[in-house]
Amino acid sequence: MALETVSENKAFGGVQGVYSHASEETGTDMTFSVFVPDRASGAKLPVLWYLSGLTCTHANVTEKGEFRAACAEHSVIFVAPDTSPRGDDVPDAADEYDFGKGAGFYVDATREPWRKHYRMRSYIERELPEVIAANFPVDMERQGITGHSMGGHGALTVGLRNPERFRSISAFSPIVAPSQVPWGKKALGRYLGEDRTAWREYDACALIEDGARHDHILVDQGTADNFLDDQLQTHRFAEACENAGIDAEIRMQEGYDHSYYFISTFMAEHVAWHAARLKA
Amino acid sequence: MALETVSENKAFGGVQGVYSHASEETGTDMTFSVFVPDRASGAKLPVLWYLSGLTCTHANVTEKGEFRAACAEHSVIFVAPDTSPRGDDVPDAADEYDFGKGAGFYVDATREPWRKHYRMRSYIERELPEVIAANFPVDMERQGITGHSMGGHGALTVGLRNPERFRSISAFSPIVAPSQVPWGKKALGRYLGEDRTAWREYDACALIEDGARHDHILVDQGTADNFLDDQLQTHRFAEACENAGIDAEIRMQEGYDHSYYFISTFMAEHVAWHAARLKA
Repeated sequence: MALETVSENKAFGGVQGVYSHASEETGTDMTFSVFVPDRASGAKLPVLWYLSGLTCTHANVTEKGEFRAACAEHSVIFVAPDTSPRGDDVPDAADEYDFGKGAGFYVDATREPWRKHYRMRSYIERELPEVIAANFPVDMERQGITGHSMGGHGALTVGLRNPERFRSISAFSPIVAPSQVPWGKKALGRYLGEDRTAWREYDACALIEDGARHDHILVDQGTADNFLDDQLQTHRFAEACENAGIDAEIRMQEGYDHSYYFISTFMAEHVAWHAARLKA
Repeated sequence: MALETVSENKAFGGVQGVYSHASEETGTDMTFSVFVPDRASGAKLPVLWYLSGLTCTHANVTEKGEFRAACAEHSVIFVAPDTSPRGDDVPDAADEYDFGKGAGFYVDATREPWRKHYRMRSYIERELPEVIAANFPVDMERQGITGHSMGGHGALTVGLRNPERFRSISAFSPIVAPSQVPWGKKALGRYLGEDRTAWREYDACALIEDGARHDHILVDQGTADNFLDDQLQTHRFAEACENAGIDAEIRMQEGYDHSYYFISTFMAEHVAWHAARLKA
């Protein structure tokens, strides 16, 4: 689990780093970013995971997410993984922004030719946490998870499958029911095959229908988001939570779109919301 | 002065726009960004200009500058111009990042082949302010100016030449004495010719030596900036101010480098500093 330091820059009193390592799960080098606030010597800090959306790498939120001021204020470590395996050996759908590289959908693929490298579920749930725990001053008893769009889907599903590990789950404009929308049907069908029972553990609404529960969920969704009606369908998540008696906070944000201008606007609130729960 | 809207996104309650227009000064289309916070109907707000550094366009600070939260809090409009003329008709030094496109140095060039298009001083001092005044809810009696590196040079020189217009001047890692350093000698020599008397109005230290004064100057400079010793030489500005009796606030920031990780860390302080002076 040797880490290579790609870059480290002082920011908001802490260190914004970018690192790479050879991943066993994906069989590729993987790059991720970590922000470590200034802290007392020896202190271990809570950690907030951020899963990114289609076409993104770790870099988008690292450059445009505006999380560092809030993470420094609340003493929270922020980890941003990549969204898929990378490299010339990794099969891709070159003309499709919503499948293949940049579109791992946080699943362990079971179909050829994807199953060898597209193991983002195990990478995010098992391997990368071990790397983070071994190399950064994190308190792994205090983890929260968030993400955007495809990464909002990732945050909700990873969090709902592991409620004992993630004390708090939030999402910006998440794909809440991938089994029901074009992006998700395409990705899950090709990564997992057409047996839809295998999709349910990768669908936040289906997970809740099947019994998953969490007491601390926050979702922000812009009303001017071009993907709201066809791909995101936030109302499905609201309905699933209501039917299950889950008290999720789902906020429709008037006039906001799908971009980092939206994410950055509410990022500080999400960091503070997680921090309150991680320090409780 | 027709404006074309390239994009508008809601952010922090306001609107982050990107616009283009046909510039008379540069003879090209020019792109710039403007953030307008939420405001009372009819209200005109103070404006903070941000001039960018080498290789940048309006986009770098717009995406990575983290100014919107502070501008929304303090009700300040933020304008970010490009750093040079653009387009296939504009002469360039294609292999040189520090000259030609992306490196206008905020001068009106007098030498061929640069003089026709490289008129960034007049563009920033005259033409773009007219465009901004005609199209946005700005109070042009309350203007401040800031910038980074080459744009810090721009902010200091534009501000020192026009102290009646800019109530406050700040800079991040500015080139303070271009006449004395490689970046500046190369650019001023080629844009203006080798008669160095013509360089003095484009050199913050020389302007102060020649009598320019301002009561509100703030400079932040990282001590881990790779360009500090050779290109920035902050101490020259400190000396020029001291010799002239100018009470500038020059802060050496321990461990910070030349990147937007540095700029974004101190951006909110700069916005607040300008706002206090623009609203005084």
